[in-house]
Amino acid sequence: MVLWVISFSDRLDQKITEKQSHVVVGLDPRWHLIPEYLKQEATKQFGQGPEAIKEVLFQFGLGIMEAVAEYAVAIKPQFAFFEQFGPWGMLALQELVLEAGKLGLLVIGDGKRNDIGSTAEAYANAYLGKVDIFEQKTQVWSMDALTVNAYLGVDGVRPFINVAKEHGNGLFVLLRTSNPSASDFQDLTCAKGKAYEAVAAKVAEWVVGEEMGQCGYSFIGVVVGATYPDDAKRLRELLPHCIFLVPGYGAQGAGALEVLPCFDENGKGAVVNSARDIIFAYTKPAYAEYGERNFADAARQAAKTMRDDLLRVVG
Amino acid sequence: MVLWVISFSDRLDQKITEKQSHVVVGLDPRWHLIPEYLKQEATKQFGQGPEAIKEVLFQFGLGIMEAVAEYAVAIKPQFAFFEQFGPWGMLALQELVLEAGKLGLLVIGDGKRNDIGSTAEAYANAYLGKVDIFEQKTQVWSMDALTVNAYLGVDGVRPFINVAKEHGNGLFVLLRTSNPSASDFQDLTCAKGKAYEAVAAKVAEWVVGEEMGQCGYSFIGVVVGATYPDDAKRLRELLPHCIFLVPGYGAQGAGALEVLPCFDENGKGAVVNSARDIIFAYTKPAYAEYGERNFADAARQAAKTMRDDLLRVVG
Repeated sequence: MVLWVISFSDRLDQKITEKQSHVVVGLDPRWHLIPEYLKQEATKQFGQGPEAIKEVLFQFGLGIMEAVAEYAVAIKPQFAFFEQFGPWGMLALQELVLEAGKLGLLVIGDGKRNDIGSTAEAYANAYLGKVDIFEQKTQVWSMDALTVNAYLGVDGVRPFINVAKEHGNGLFVLLRTSNPSASDFQDLTCAKGKAYEAVAAKVAEWVVGEEMGQCGYSFIGVVVGATYPDDAKRLRELLPHCIFLVPGYGAQGAGALEVLPCFDENGKGAVVNSARDIIFAYTKPAYAEYGERNFADAARQAAKTMRDDLLRVVG
Repeated sequence: MVLWVISFSDRLDQKITEKQSHVVVGLDPRWHLIPEYLKQEATKQFGQGPEAIKEVLFQFGLGIMEAVAEYAVAIKPQFAFFEQFGPWGMLALQELVLEAGKLGLLVIGDGKRNDIGSTAEAYANAYLGKVDIFEQKTQVWSMDALTVNAYLGVDGVRPFINVAKEHGNGLFVLLRTSNPSASDFQDLTCAKGKAYEAVAAKVAEWVVGEEMGQCGYSFIGVVVGATYPDDAKRLRELLPHCIFLVPGYGAQGAGALEVLPCFDENGKGAVVNSARDIIFAYTKPAYAEYGERNFADAARQAAKTMRDDLLRVVG
């Protein structure tokens, strides 16, 4: 039985319209920035073992998600900050994903996964589909989308496309990242332009071969850093049906004007991620009045500020 | 206090000498190929929940490792096949890594991780270093080396280099993978040759800046597929101090002669991975006599056969 599923791009588009927001909140639980009182409470209950770590990550993440749900369309958990705490960190991630759904937040897993053939398929099944366990198809991570690194070529991306399509989920292919050394390899000049443009050309081929959402966008999106607005403009033209997931706003230096080229003329086709500036807003001078016990309220305010900042420019 | 640590390349070199082997066993626990009796035993004990999954993965992995320890220098767990079972799959991985150490096997984590700055550092600390938890530096995954995707440039690799160096561990940068579509992006022709050669040139720079092991090899290695022997030959010249981790032998089509160009003239500088052909040898016609209950013995025999096959050619 195939249930009727709304495509990822349409689900995201609905959230954008509903919440009048283009904000994605990066959930990067950096241990030393998490409020001390959460650690103390967890320690009282569980000592300093793995259960305590899980509790800290879960309570922090839940607090953030409840606070930003009104102003954010999705959360983007950065896997590294969960994996670094071992299986118990991953358990916190799994539970947070379930809570996100209840709060009306989509989940874009930032795993930058990549491999080939059946291994890529295993990643895809894990995060975007179902896994065969004891002869039952089981949803394990239940995410709405996943970031994917395409260095291995189409063999490395096709399994993600297939599984995402089957389950109404999405993927974001790394194209032009927001970091300074992105140019090391992404900017290599080849016969057909720069290396990242060659990746873009391949993505364009993949998109054409697949069904489009009703919103006019594909479930195959791309990651385009806000720190290179000229490149973003060209990529927006090359990939008219791809949703751009845009890192680099805020802590990494780009403002609303820099992300503007990532949007289409109707103010659609992009969502913008911010992590530190929202989830750890309580540590910033501008939000000092909140204090650590109100870290979630500070995050809510920061998410609202970002939402409004983007709306002013994108419309 | 800094303890005196043997560098990763020297540890690997010692294993190669000790065991007279260049074999790495890929631990890719594909559920449907794992012997049924292991699943039945786990189900009897734990039902069909996550504990049972963990037990199956652990018992299968332990059986394989005990069997191949004599003939293999390292195991290479493929993270996808653990992650797909969620946190409990990751728990099995964590416990298997500890067992590998006791059995005298190095662990090369095949995660193909990649990100930038402090996120890459979080991955590096997790798998190759120590993580700050409740003000204690804690070893979480305790692996000897990790595969890394360099598409994000030096920002994405430097943190892995730094952490690996500090803890006497290693990394393998994806350079020339073994899959058919590797050429999609890796073969783009740029001013300085092909894209993967540009990656190789960067790796060469990184290697020159770091201390070498006594064996003459760096802790910074590369992944070079056996399915492109001509490229391997050129890369061997470009990167005289990098250990090659070579996938593509066996199931993917390459034999001992094809991997030969990955070695230096002294038969050093490379290790060759095989997964399916060893760990699921019991499913192959040549090993049918073993039966599923002797899957480990079949794996032992297959590992020995591969070891001998390589020794004949590499010497």
